[in-house]
Amino acid sequence: MTLLVVGSTAFDTIETPHGNAERCLGGSSTYFGLAARLFSPVRLVSVVGEDFPAEHKQLLSDRNIDLAGLEVKPGKTFFWHGRYSADMNQRDTIEVQLNTFGDFEPKVPESYRDSEFVFLANGSPATQASVVEQMNKPRFVVADTMDLWIDNERAGLLDLLKRIDGVIVNDTEVKSLTGESNLITAGKAALELGPKVVIVKKGEHGCFLFSNDFHYALPAYPTETVLDPTGAGDSFAGGFMGYLANCASISLANMQRAAAYGTVTASINVEGFGVDCLANTNREIVEGRYRELMQFVSGV
Amino acid sequence: MTLLVVGSTAFDTIETPHGNAERCLGGSSTYFGLAARLFSPVRLVSVVGEDFPAEHKQLLSDRNIDLAGLEVKPGKTFFWHGRYSADMNQRDTIEVQLNTFGDFEPKVPESYRDSEFVFLANGSPATQASVVEQMNKPRFVVADTMDLWIDNERAGLLDLLKRIDGVIVNDTEVKSLTGESNLITAGKAALELGPKVVIVKKGEHGCFLFSNDFHYALPAYPTETVLDPTGAGDSFAGGFMGYLANCASISLANMQRAAAYGTVTASINVEGFGVDCLANTNREIVEGRYRELMQFVSGV
Repeated sequence: MTLLVVGSTAFDTIETPHGNAERCLGGSSTYFGLAARLFSPVRLVSVVGEDFPAEHKQLLSDRNIDLAGLEVKPGKTFFWHGRYSADMNQRDTIEVQLNTFGDFEPKVPESYRDSEFVFLANGSPATQASVVEQMNKPRFVVADTMDLWIDNERAGLLDLLKRIDGVIVNDTEVKSLTGESNLITAGKAALELGPKVVIVKKGEHGCFLFSNDFHYALPAYPTETVLDPTGAGDSFAGGFMGYLANCASISLANMQRAAAYGTVTASINVEGFGVDCLANTNREIVEGRYRELMQFVSGV
Repeated sequence: MTLLVVGSTAFDTIETPHGNAERCLGGSSTYFGLAARLFSPVRLVSVVGEDFPAEHKQLLSDRNIDLAGLEVKPGKTFFWHGRYSADMNQRDTIEVQLNTFGDFEPKVPESYRDSEFVFLANGSPATQASVVEQMNKPRFVVADTMDLWIDNERAGLLDLLKRIDGVIVNDTEVKSLTGESNLITAGKAALELGPKVVIVKKGEHGCFLFSNDFHYALPAYPTETVLDPTGAGDSFAGGFMGYLANCASISLANMQRAAAYGTVTASINVEGFGVDCLANTNREIVEGRYRELMQFVSGV
């Protein structure tokens, strides 16, 4: 089935205790797309500046990512510079240049409007809502969000949550979204805000899925190599939505498997800088890790 | 099969954001025993002072905990006063009076020396080793430890680890024990120090089991009520060892189930102050939670 992602495309400069990367390809739509394309073709809506090189476009389109929705505007591409702490559990933003992404108004091409699966990467609730309005009855819309919007655009976010099917948040975000300090209580409370499924990412501790029919806990893939956590959340979302878009039904069992595939694509992503590992992996590697994850969870 | 615990018995004064408890029954052997007795009779070796009330002894012996190894010495019982942070993820020790526990030299009664399962609750490696020396070929010996011993009694601890079957540590402890910052790498590295199984407790994030044959990840029971985390680790160990002591073999499947029962007994423990909830629960409640945990992990 058809899968659309709307989000940022960026140049990232990343500093970690394991090394640095300068102006590498990044952005939520990129990480999402490179994970999702392992399961399903991806349609991308994003914006870049005139400095965005042809080889980056080539890298994406060579990997089953349709760039008909990638707008090129006068000016520069979104730039982010981040630095991770020694244990990589914290990161500081050293510099942000929004550039062409500053007034991003996603325009969904006519040919994309029938997309059945839609991922609204982190962005203002107003921007995310504008995408929903452009779609022609999508089957399953999932949004990411962050503290900035939870704190400053709460009304818009609460309105959005009533109009979408799922939300992907991390443990801190679901607590601040609901005002609940217990993670299980927070997950249930988030369900009451509208979405049919609430996916709580807990990084190295895995994820929870909450719906009215089930609660599900999945540990993370046991990776021993974490070089660069940038894009872990978006590559999780990409694996989750990509797998699901390829399923005949949005059943519990398929959502569980989708969460496991998201866990796998996120684990591959963090093992290299930027999108390097995601861009160079394939379905066979993914399936191998999926089996390892299932073994880790079942013990056999 | 026969199960022995060697550890502290204490009076605890506990302050949490949810309330306080004054001089309630505590100590590692107590929490362990009250969890383990749900599955198997428990033999206890510990020490108290003359101020230890008959009703506490009654509470324990009424619950299948054999107190033949509970030494009563002139003086007072070990006293601990702790205060939890607002999110309960940190605690400060306000006061410690070691009292009779200060020079605790565990004496395993003759009648206990054939115990097949042995849990060495947190204590100095020298004290723990002295118990191993008193035993008559136990089948499965597991030790708890803490940063104090990892940092200050490293040689003794490393020596102990070669002589026992399993170690139960938390995520911080296994990292400092092995010098590895990645939890999976740390778990594997701890195996190389001698034990056949390394159990890593991650609190609300569940636990990992590492052995040379398997790695296993289990999420925590999804409790929404955490009133007092005191004794969570010992009540996990109690459920784990108690269940295992009741099994015909120490197989992978039995260790997995044992970890799940430990998760359940720990979840019951944290829902009340001190040992209140553990003392008043029963096997039926435990089995209900075990089924819920399996549902949470499998999604069905």
